[in-house]
Amino acid sequence: MSADSPAALTFKPAFPGYAERVRTSFARQGAMALIGAELVDVSPGHCAIALVPRKEVSQQHGYVHAGVLAALADSAGGYAGYTLFPEESSVLTVEYKLNLLAPAQGDRIVAEGFVVKPGRTLAITRGEVYAERNGGRTLVALMQQTLMVMHGKPDDGASRRGA
Amino acid sequence: MSADSPAALTFKPAFPGYAERVRTSFARQGAMALIGAELVDVSPGHCAIALVPRKEVSQQHGYVHAGVLAALADSAGGYAGYTLFPEESSVLTVEYKLNLLAPAQGDRIVAEGFVVKPGRTLAITRGEVYAERNGGRTLVALMQQTLMVMHGKPDDGASRRGA
Amino acid sequence: MSADSPAALTFKPAFPGYAERVRTSFARQGAMALIGAELVDVSPGHCAIALVPRKEVSQQHGYVHAGVLAALADSAGGYAGYTLFPEESSVLTVEYKLNLLAPAQGDRIVAEGFVVKPGRTLAITRGEVYAERNGGRTLVALMQQTLMVMHGKPDDGASRRGA
Amino acid sequence: MSADSPAALTFKPAFPGYAERVRTSFARQGAMALIGAELVDVSPGHCAIALVPRKEVSQQHGYVHAGVLAALADSAGGYAGYTLFPEESSVLTVEYKLNLLAPAQGDRIVAEGFVVKPGRTLAITRGEVYAERNGGRTLVALMQQTLMVMHGKPDDGASRRGA
Repeated sequence: MSADSPAALTFKPAFPGYAERVRTSFARQGAMALIGAELVDVSPGHCAIALVPRKEVSQQHGYVHAGVLAALADSAGGYAGYTLFPEESSVLTVEYKLNLLAPAQGDRIVAEGFVVKPGRTLAITRGEVYAERNGGRTLVALMQQTLMVMHGKPDDGASRRGA
Repeated sequence: MSADSPAALTFKPAFPGYAERVRTSFARQGAMALIGAELVDVSPGHCAIALVPRKEVSQQHGYVHAGVLAALADSAGGYAGYTLFPEESSVLTVEYKLNLLAPAQGDRIVAEGFVVKPGRTLAITRGEVYAERNGGRTLVALMQQTLMVMHGKPDDGASRRGA
Repeated sequence: MSADSPAALTFKPAFPGYAERVRTSFARQGAMALIGAELVDVSPGHCAIALVPRKEVSQQHGYVHAGVLAALADSAGGYAGYTLFPEESSVLTVEYKLNLLAPAQGDRIVAEGFVVKPGRTLAITRGEVYAERNGGRTLVALMQQTLMVMHGKPDDGASRRGA
Repeated sequence: MSADSPAALTFKPAFPGYAERVRTSFARQGAMALIGAELVDVSPGHCAIALVPRKEVSQQHGYVHAGVLAALADSAGGYAGYTLFPEESSVLTVEYKLNLLAPAQGDRIVAEGFVVKPGRTLAITRGEVYAERNGGRTLVALMQQTLMVMHGKPDDGASRRGA
């Protein structure tokens, strides 16, 4: 992968309070609390969310449910994008595509979102979900996502999805 | 949509116990119980899963979280496919793509999975998630999914994802 | 599929000249001419594009190349959306996902685009590509697509992709 | 992107003639010749295909048509995967998702395919399409793709798509 890879890009946030804004928004998500997810990194163009696997978030074979991996990846990608959005805005997921690559089991699951292409109206992210075990980590899911910048609609509960 | 639409196809299950097998597998999914999802229909090439929205499955604006919609759609599509799989097999989601179309709010959320193309190794499904309110329903998410038939691996917890 | 299926929706064009506008735009696409594609239907929320298979559009096994199917499906979906866009606008594909279901061979390949959800900024479509042979037709590819309405940018060559 | 990124993986081909096999298969694709595409790199887990933009591969605004970008990305991803497949096998695209990020214009378009996850039955790749201009390059499309290993079916025209 060459030096001009999307992943090598550095981004400047448009709003200095970008990290606090993500933390506040994350805390407002009932679903993230329900599954036991924790915000572990917020930086310009990047967000990481982690979860310790337990029975309540499993599928029928005992691994972490794909829907839970999707929720983690979707949120990590969405908040990665949100770090670059202007002050008076919120973020909506337009769509994503998720490949499930390996059983999600281990000591900890970490979803990382990376902005690939920021934009005035849309932003594109890549999400990687890893299962950590015995000091190593395995890629268990890969996501490609499209976000929408909701201008003039702060993330205060008054916004609505739907373009 | 013409008469030869994928949605108009009728399918014959390869295994007579297909519906019971789906119900048993669904009951084994901790994540489905956690979010409060209920299996409401299993028929050849089709599966419907419903959920009554509540705070615990919300995102930051109060609507049902996209990850929860994804879990419902993924499971509905997966089990729709599973109704057509042979006796000694289980089902794995290879990947899906989900568009979020409108805020998911209402009295009930219903995810419907439809088989578009069955196959020996792979099956393709379409998922539609609706929000029901006051007798009407609104399409809130649309999914296109690829499943894998895991031959010789019954859905008993011994299977593993990963092709 | 119930009566409120996306496919059963009827749409009203916002611009009376919607069909002529699609035909003019299609004629301007060098790539459509290169592969030998023909516009066979334009109606509100729908577009169909056909192609007679020949060696020049084949992949290594002699079937129609997936990239050609993609070009047909992308254009059919894009123009289906464009039929519902306002007068001073053009259409851009944000993204799509395409499943390849069967070898594309036959007397004629037809790609049909259907609007699933129109919107002010974005529109979602479904694309179906069929291979016709001996009076029957087989679904060979299935697409789910996101379009962007480019307000104030007529389809005259002055527009640019990129949100 | 950390050191354990998928892109940093190194792969060992299972078949020593992997590069020649890709070149032979590429040469058999009428569609690649039609659009003027050229194979510029084949290495384990990687493939690059380039094209010089011209009117015949344009869309209505004069940029390279999304279907052409798709054909390049699909082929680059497919051949990247094929470099790792066993001797008696061919490659089929199951599905892909493509985001179009910027207008494709410049001196040269290059599509790069990278294997993210090889597998016995399926392989997952990432595709990046760049437009090169004045010594710089811009990411114009991003793809995530699922391939199928067709065991026992060499790439000789006798294979068929469809799982």
